[in-house]
Amino acid sequence: MQLSFSNKARRTQEQPINALIVAALANPKLINLAAGLVDFDTLPVAEVKQAADAILSDPRRGRAALQYETTQGLAELRAEALKHLEKLEGKAGLSMGLTADDFVITTGSQQALYLIGDVLIDPGDIVITSNPSYFVYTGTLTSFGANVLAVRGDENGMDVGALEQLLARLDSEGRLGRVKMVYCTSYFDNPTGITLGADRREPMVRLVERFSKKHRIVILEDAAYRELRYDGEELSSIKSFDPNNAHTIIACTFSKPFAPGIKTGYTAMPKDLLHAVLQQKGNHDFGSASLSQHIALEALATGLYAKQVQKLKANYRKKRDVMLAALDRHMPKEPGISWTKPGGGLYVWLTLPGRVDTRGAGPMFAECVERGVLYVPGDHAYQPDENGTVPTNHLRLCFGSVPTELIEPGIERLAGVVSELLGSRNDAEGEKMHGRDAHATQGAPVAQAPGAVVI
Amino acid sequence: MQLSFSNKARRTQEQPINALIVAALANPKLINLAAGLVDFDTLPVAEVKQAADAILSDPRRGRAALQYETTQGLAELRAEALKHLEKLEGKAGLSMGLTADDFVITTGSQQALYLIGDVLIDPGDIVITSNPSYFVYTGTLTSFGANVLAVRGDENGMDVGALEQLLARLDSEGRLGRVKMVYCTSYFDNPTGITLGADRREPMVRLVERFSKKHRIVILEDAAYRELRYDGEELSSIKSFDPNNAHTIIACTFSKPFAPGIKTGYTAMPKDLLHAVLQQKGNHDFGSASLSQHIALEALATGLYAKQVQKLKANYRKKRDVMLAALDRHMPKEPGISWTKPGGGLYVWLTLPGRVDTRGAGPMFAECVERGVLYVPGDHAYQPDENGTVPTNHLRLCFGSVPTELIEPGIERLAGVVSELLGSRNDAEGEKMHGRDAHATQGAPVAQAPGAVVI
Repeated sequence: MQLSFSNKARRTQEQPINALIVAALANPKLINLAAGLVDFDTLPVAEVKQAADAILSDPRRGRAALQYETTQGLAELRAEALKHLEKLEGKAGLSMGLTADDFVITTGSQQALYLIGDVLIDPGDIVITSNPSYFVYTGTLTSFGANVLAVRGDENGMDVGALEQLLARLDSEGRLGRVKMVYCTSYFDNPTGITLGADRREPMVRLVERFSKKHRIVILEDAAYRELRYDGEELSSIKSFDPNNAHTIIACTFSKPFAPGIKTGYTAMPKDLLHAVLQQKGNHDFGSASLSQHIALEALATGLYAKQVQKLKANYRKKRDVMLAALDRHMPKEPGISWTKPGGGLYVWLTLPGRVDTRGAGPMFAECVERGVLYVPGDHAYQPDENGTVPTNHLRLCFGSVPTELIEPGIERLAGVVSELLGSRNDAEGEKMHGRDAHATQGAPVAQAPGAVVI
Repeated sequence: MQLSFSNKARRTQEQPINALIVAALANPKLINLAAGLVDFDTLPVAEVKQAADAILSDPRRGRAALQYETTQGLAELRAEALKHLEKLEGKAGLSMGLTADDFVITTGSQQALYLIGDVLIDPGDIVITSNPSYFVYTGTLTSFGANVLAVRGDENGMDVGALEQLLARLDSEGRLGRVKMVYCTSYFDNPTGITLGADRREPMVRLVERFSKKHRIVILEDAAYRELRYDGEELSSIKSFDPNNAHTIIACTFSKPFAPGIKTGYTAMPKDLLHAVLQQKGNHDFGSASLSQHIALEALATGLYAKQVQKLKANYRKKRDVMLAALDRHMPKEPGISWTKPGGGLYVWLTLPGRVDTRGAGPMFAECVERGVLYVPGDHAYQPDENGTVPTNHLRLCFGSVPTELIEPGIERLAGVVSELLGSRNDAEGEKMHGRDAHATQGAPVAQAPGAVVI
């Protein structure tokens, strides 16, 4: 006899990333450029030991760390999170309408993303994102029944003009009442590594204010990779342009800039949204692990955190450089092949000629697995266009967890497969594309068509 | 401009327990017999320090503990959890259809309860529970839109005959297709302290098998308090009577028998349900905190866990005895006053004469807060009967987190308020009850009416 699952369960797709993590953990011989894990060698084992020792050597703190914590999270950690955000923005919390009471501590920032979807989305509601975008979260949104509409992006992220056009069109169609939020990874996006342009941040806030005609539309800013910056100057967040804490949420995590194993994130949001989120979180778990929160607090307060961020930046900068140099050295010099040069984060986004099919069920992926290199097929990260098609000639490369010395051999294997695929089909160059990848990029970082995206 | 919340958010009620935890953490002078926290003085600070040291002194283990873990959870911990369950049941996992792959590690067992609701419940679906039952979870179920139907219980927990009658009635009404599960805290229930009788466990499994006509109905067995047993022999779980792992889920936690601060639980369930749960958990957080999982594993594998359980049992047994003795000594000797004598867990359930209103908005609660003693009003734990009424003359007392030496003073304050309320209204004794508490108990542990419950 079968179980009878909920509609939500039936809407929920297998998350590609989990299978990839399982593969990564199971087969250490593969050169895994797919798994979005962090670097193993720089995990702050000594630092967390020092923090745990300090907490657990003090009976009062030790007991607090082993007792239940509130659903909202450790007050001292929320206060430190606010101070930390103030430092990153270079402005006072109050100028963004924020106090420590506007923060919630979650089981990684993913839980915050989930909870915000949970309290805002009914089936048929609209969430707007960029194309491509973070596929774990667009999958989550789809499980809530959201209609995820993607606007084009370019080398500076989501095109705010395209966002405005879409909102205006939805308004004229009488669908503005279904628009709940705009989702944007504003720093070193997963999967592209692209950062939202400095001049697009404030206009995005003003835009959702202007279109908040039926109800308040919010921007969910995913800042998971913010502190992993290897080039250039820190940018103010989208959140920093919302002085009344009314239209924006910023989701931050300790996973990427410190350690995923403590699974702790912090998110600031409007008070009415926070209230609803805390009610749901009460149902989910009534509070994330207290011990992890105390470790995060100790690391922030003592400077262990800041030192670890510097260490990670130096290490990841080098890994990024190795990956970019290897791509330069090994990828065929051919029109239609390009890749992003991210100023931070963990990802490089590779674009191949439109006739190359990078999908998991395709020949390229199978050949790569055969030769011992794994990537994330790019089609997962796209919302379909009006014809239901997605580009199938992109892939995500992660330099996060792969050991530095394996990056070049991995890229070499990948480039070998690409060369052979291109060589053997040279007759089809350029002109003939498959129907399903009509919007696929030809290597130039400009948009091809509305609704499709090229990076 | 207002936000537009989801239907689920709008269905979600404030969790009474969270406000109580906040109150408990904020005002240490109150004698808090309400908060369901665990005992502070016996929190295993030294033990967790020892476990954390062992993990973080070994670079290989330390890195694993600080990296992402899989959504399903640390394989070694799932294997230890299986061994632990086998020991508790006195039978092999395979005789229950279980391997370590049938377990998921969650952020406390509450997350497992949540996820199971998430994948099974659509608005209007039916979940059957006992009356009273764990109010955090019935609130969660209500937020999913579940129709929570409660059957009567007695001093041995849910009445399986009443469950059968309800299932038969739903079948005859053509509503069996909406019945998704039966929820039962089988050991030292929250809020009553009552344990499901040994002779009711197997019949409950056979019953849901028999009524699985439209689809497979499952029993969600909440075993959070199982190991906190102070009297009598260990009982086999409901799960142990399900040889094919088809109809039962057992949710277990490290929070109560070890430490809530690591917020780690483990749950075994049928494979098809597990698949759906893992998909949702991928969306929620793609895996609970790895460090906590490694600490739980170390504690289980080295015997630190077993020693801690013994220590907690000795301490809680004493606290329970102090509370029961204080109730004997201070509560008025009057018909209509009774309380449970739990053989384990953290709770005593107090029944007062029907004319006493224990609700949070009533005079008794206010007077208790005034005198410095806090309890959980019992009405939160009831599902309304056909007339929409719930008993309002019960309350939950927790001997978990209150210091031993404050238990008697707390009970004395409480009994003082009860005495005054009864003395000042002695003219109304027995006969006149408020309409809304027509099903209120008069102290005897027998059912008054179908659909209502007396403990």
